[in-house]
Amino acid sequence: MRLAVGLGARGLGAVWPNPAVGCVIVQGARIVGRGWTQAGGRPHAEVHALAQAGEAARGATAYVSLEPCSHHGKTPPCAEALVAAGVTRVVSALTDPDARVAGRGHALLRAAGIDVTEGVEEEAARLANGGFLSRIQRGRPMLTLKLALTLDARIATAAGHSRWITGPEARRHVHLMRANHDAVLVGAGTARADDPDLRIRDLGISRQPVRIVADSRLSLPPESRLGRSLDQAPLWLLHTAQASEVAQDMWRAEGAEVIECAQDPMGRLDLADALQQLGARGLTRVLCEGGGGLAASLVRGDLVDELAVFSAGHMFGADGTAGLAGLGVDEIPPHRWALSHSQQVGRDLLHQWRRVGYPCKT
Amino acid sequence: MRLAVGLGARGLGAVWPNPAVGCVIVQGARIVGRGWTQAGGRPHAEVHALAQAGEAARGATAYVSLEPCSHHGKTPPCAEALVAAGVTRVVSALTDPDARVAGRGHALLRAAGIDVTEGVEEEAARLANGGFLSRIQRGRPMLTLKLALTLDARIATAAGHSRWITGPEARRHVHLMRANHDAVLVGAGTARADDPDLRIRDLGISRQPVRIVADSRLSLPPESRLGRSLDQAPLWLLHTAQASEVAQDMWRAEGAEVIECAQDPMGRLDLADALQQLGARGLTRVLCEGGGGLAASLVRGDLVDELAVFSAGHMFGADGTAGLAGLGVDEIPPHRWALSHSQQVGRDLLHQWRRVGYPCKT
Repeated sequence: MRLAVGLGARGLGAVWPNPAVGCVIVQGARIVGRGWTQAGGRPHAEVHALAQAGEAARGATAYVSLEPCSHHGKTPPCAEALVAAGVTRVVSALTDPDARVAGRGHALLRAAGIDVTEGVEEEAARLANGGFLSRIQRGRPMLTLKLALTLDARIATAAGHSRWITGPEARRHVHLMRANHDAVLVGAGTARADDPDLRIRDLGISRQPVRIVADSRLSLPPESRLGRSLDQAPLWLLHTAQASEVAQDMWRAEGAEVIECAQDPMGRLDLADALQQLGARGLTRVLCEGGGGLAASLVRGDLVDELAVFSAGHMFGADGTAGLAGLGVDEIPPHRWALSHSQQVGRDLLHQWRRVGYPCKT
Repeated sequence: MRLAVGLGARGLGAVWPNPAVGCVIVQGARIVGRGWTQAGGRPHAEVHALAQAGEAARGATAYVSLEPCSHHGKTPPCAEALVAAGVTRVVSALTDPDARVAGRGHALLRAAGIDVTEGVEEEAARLANGGFLSRIQRGRPMLTLKLALTLDARIATAAGHSRWITGPEARRHVHLMRANHDAVLVGAGTARADDPDLRIRDLGISRQPVRIVADSRLSLPPESRLGRSLDQAPLWLLHTAQASEVAQDMWRAEGAEVIECAQDPMGRLDLADALQQLGARGLTRVLCEGGGGLAASLVRGDLVDELAVFSAGHMFGADGTAGLAGLGVDEIPPHRWALSHSQQVGRDLLHQWRRVGYPCKT
């Protein structure tokens, strides 16, 4: 099952709005088929693995990291495919919370006389598909906040210098993170100041994430790198009623998706609403790359599920720019981040933290 | 040799002004003696190991993490003891930079017909005795700066709450760090605000580090925990000419050591001079526990050799108190910190960084 979960994770970033599922088919002591949800969301993992197994699937056991689907969508149901292939046992990690499945896949298998074991390595499968579960259960994608900081959590010196704090290996690692997320999100200030194009480079990956800017007034200039690369990768702009019709029409004409979001009581973009809108469009995993204002707003709104902190061996001092704006925290909160992983990346340290309580239970 | 270096490290914090040396005596394929510099600095490692080996030292090889001493100090020279015991080969990691030795130990062994190999695992030995090397070569102790920070490098919330940011395991680990340093240093602001006593507790260690406060005006009240525990552990106060004679006499009468240091051009305690004074008094390893002002002054003065950062899974935001005050850094400096170690401690992450260029070469 761990292999199935690991195979499934290969699809992260490429299969939204679908889950990234893995499937391993075992005949006796031999693996006869391995599959994972393919880019674009199909074929599904089971179909992929069954095709590899061929006749060897007859009488075999299938390990799947998510309940096989039971509904006729763009592909025939995987549960039926497993039955047709003659699989006699299915071991499943997790019930699919999608209302169209929700136990019907397991039931369909059992009705066909297949021996079904559920809940094996459920926690690992839940983590791997946290983004899909979040979309189905909370209506919004899971959100990873990336912070690249000095040891005293600065992102620029007192004079505003910021390139580069982290080394080339860490910056390359961020491109890898872009690749396993569906979309990359930045604030309008960062988009204007740094003029990034937020694409994946130098990894041999042609697929690009959706680029998203939280830009209440649609202030991003069309001649920005993001605007000029619309033929290379999608660009979605989150704005409020404060954005002019002219700007909206202009961006639509350029080919961007323009998404109007609610305002919070202070007239700012309501990020909870924005994430619901992204969830409704199918996104399951969003990577926020800053800046410090947007990061603080997301933290304050309890909308961040994972933190990826790159700590670089520099100190800029309190007169440098803070990587996270004010939060208005007075009492030390019980809410905490749990360390999930750390590793050296080049000369920097990457440490990842998961919000206590994430991923949500089914 | 790695074993010898590791044994030597057992003495760190307990042997100043001496180096913390380890010695392993091997007869054929058998270890017949293991020793390390004992608390207080004697017996030396070689004497300790030779006593254990007894007659088995005859014809044996001795591995020592530092050149055996050649001068008659409080103990007879170790080089002579090795000759007398009949050791036929000595493998040494490092030449002792102490002017009273400086190669004479190796020469004395060779003159007695002993086969001497130098420089084995020199880097590891240099690191383990970085504090001693610093005292001899730079005249000042090596300095470790401990920072216990939220993920956004804060030490208190906007309302000033700071207890506790890190968990009990991390706080216990700090007591372990106190134990392997000769002294603990804090700023006067922190001493007044937190009223710590800076002793080692709950580790079964009775020896206590020297407690040092950087207190230009001798503003620390005698009824502070530091003042009230003078019978438990030494207290040294670093002050400038701004401190009154009355305060100096009072603290001397209390049993504290009062050390007058130079002022910098802005009238503040000259920390470079203060560290030279600590080196002259024999300290080899000093742990600075804050606060943010003292930490920033030490960093700005390039006086910090190692950083021990505890990152806790909290974020307080830019309106919280920064763990490091302003540094006046404009350009991103080439000077960097190299990651030397990281580990999870309870729920927190400890990451240690070493100043590039430390420890200094002989």
